[in-house]
Amino acid sequence: MAKCFEQLDGVFVALSDPTRRAVVMHLGHGPMSVGELARDFPMTLPSFMKHLRTLEANGLIRTIKSGRVRTCVLNRERLALVDDWLAQQRQIWEERTDRLEQFVTDPEEKTRGESRPRP
Amino acid sequence: MAKCFEQLDGVFVALSDPTRRAVVMHLGHGPMSVGELARDFPMTLPSFMKHLRTLEANGLIRTIKSGRVRTCVLNRERLALVDDWLAQQRQIWEERTDRLEQFVTDPEEKTRGESRPRP
Repeated sequence: MAKCFEQLDGVFVALSDPTRRAVVMHLGHGPMSVGELARDFPMTLPSFMKHLRTLEANGLIRTIKSGRVRTCVLNRERLALVDDWLAQQRQIWEERTDRLEQFVTDPEEKTRGESRPRP
Repeated sequence: MAKCFEQLDGVFVALSDPTRRAVVMHLGHGPMSVGELARDFPMTLPSFMKHLRTLEANGLIRTIKSGRVRTCVLNRERLALVDDWLAQQRQIWEERTDRLEQFVTDPEEKTRGESRPRP
């Protein structure tokens, strides 16, 4: 659980930059070489590589070297952590909405006490 | 669009810390005063306030002062930006899967050309 928390910290850090989110989006279409990817980003190659390293260090992408070509692959499973976290929040909100609805539709139930049998 | 990008940067930064994610989760149950919230976090009040300010600056929570009590309220709309971004990624992946499926089920279609009518 603690490991998952740490991974989530890193995923959010990695996604907090527009260049890194754009790389994730590009790789959503399929694996790409560093060279192909870098062409779409108006920055120096060292700056771009720094972003790739942040994405790789936080598990959002994997890179595979074959000869002189390094290919980047998206790791969707790591993005699923964000999905899971959001789903957890939505569940909390829904439970709250349910409680509020119950209170609004039957406010007296609260004052009568939960243990009293319903008629 | 640029504003939305900036907002998303801030939302991801705000969510990259376990304390701040825990505050978001707590406030999912409903508004809480700073005092009530702070009780659940083992840190000094100034440190905790810093986290609240980061959440507020990035639009994830609002705080309302009434007399001596400051109440924190979750801003779910800001979290929806993350949902929208993830949905956009999923759409890209699904389009890719559709294209791959089409290629696997009918690989010759590609070589015959798209304009040729099917038998």
